[in-house]
Amino acid sequence: MNSKLRPWDVLDSRDVYVAEPWMTVSVQQVRLPDGTVIDDYHQIKLGEFTVVFAQTSDGKILVERQYKHGLGRVTLTLPAGSINKGEDPLVAAQRELLEETGYRSDNWKPLGTYVPHGSYGCGKAHLFKASAVYQVAAPESGDLEEMEILLMEPAEVVKSISQGDVELLGTMSTILLATHPLMNGDGVS
Amino acid sequence: MNSKLRPWDVLDSRDVYVAEPWMTVSVQQVRLPDGTVIDDYHQIKLGEFTVVFAQTSDGKILVERQYKHGLGRVTLTLPAGSINKGEDPLVAAQRELLEETGYRSDNWKPLGTYVPHGSYGCGKAHLFKASAVYQVAAPESGDLEEMEILLMEPAEVVKSISQGDVELLGTMSTILLATHPLMNGDGVS
Repeated sequence: MNSKLRPWDVLDSRDVYVAEPWMTVSVQQVRLPDGTVIDDYHQIKLGEFTVVFAQTSDGKILVERQYKHGLGRVTLTLPAGSINKGEDPLVAAQRELLEETGYRSDNWKPLGTYVPHGSYGCGKAHLFKASAVYQVAAPESGDLEEMEILLMEPAEVVKSISQGDVELLGTMSTILLATHPLMNGDGVS
Repeated sequence: MNSKLRPWDVLDSRDVYVAEPWMTVSVQQVRLPDGTVIDDYHQIKLGEFTVVFAQTSDGKILVERQYKHGLGRVTLTLPAGSINKGEDPLVAAQRELLEETGYRSDNWKPLGTYVPHGSYGCGKAHLFKASAVYQVAAPESGDLEEMEILLMEPAEVVKSISQGDVELLGTMSTILLATHPLMNGDGVS
């Protein structure tokens, strides 16, 4: 490996905007492997969140249609939500699926953990696939999350991406991770 | 469509942290469709960026290995970069591919535009596939972007996701968009 491919040294870090529990913006002084020092490299710390690709035993996917303020439009999403402080990501995913849709699953598979922004961070996305989900309750979403819940065929969900109906990076990538034939061997099943 | 699925009204917006040209954090007073008013909903405005899945005429993918400070580790990425103010996303993608790898393409296909964070925004990712890329120059990356450039088979790139070697949401999703058989009909070619 190239010897220059080393982590940067953080020489100093000061918080410049703090709004607990939502976000902390900091400015860091960092030293690169070649010795260059940058005085003002920003980092954005946001909460971690989960996104769930939930499939019923007859193959349908639980899809939501809702307004997302970060996008400014109504869009297709998957069950998703913030991880509480100290909460295990899988437990959070199970809680969000139940709260938003009233469904549970006994078969969970992690699809990986990903950082939304390569330069600034912006939290972490923990993605999951839940198979053979079954309804145990009515949805109990809070007032920030008015939504429609749809049951769609996997191929239809993937098609909605190419039609531009999926506009969030986390939703789109979770759909593709769960349905890509080279990713998990069970493809669009 | 459910009548509650309407955009929120922004009643007031004030910038609480500004670091031009990188970011602006604002706090908005918003009114939900049911009339609820929230006084402190944050938005994070970051620059837009591009990610490029670039494939040679013999099928290899241009992959980079580099340190990303938002992640804090060395990871696999694709050619990517910020869009300059007023720059067309496709022009930015072509410029970044050339600067980082020395390659060009005469065959560009948009893979969509996505928002990294559903609640806060955090910029926009414009994703592209460049086919039959050919080398016209040496890479000319700046000192922030020390990297190794690898030529990998598509199946190997997808496998690197399941192995945990791809940890950025934008990189992972661009790889899957460009290789998902239901997305574009040409699959892993």
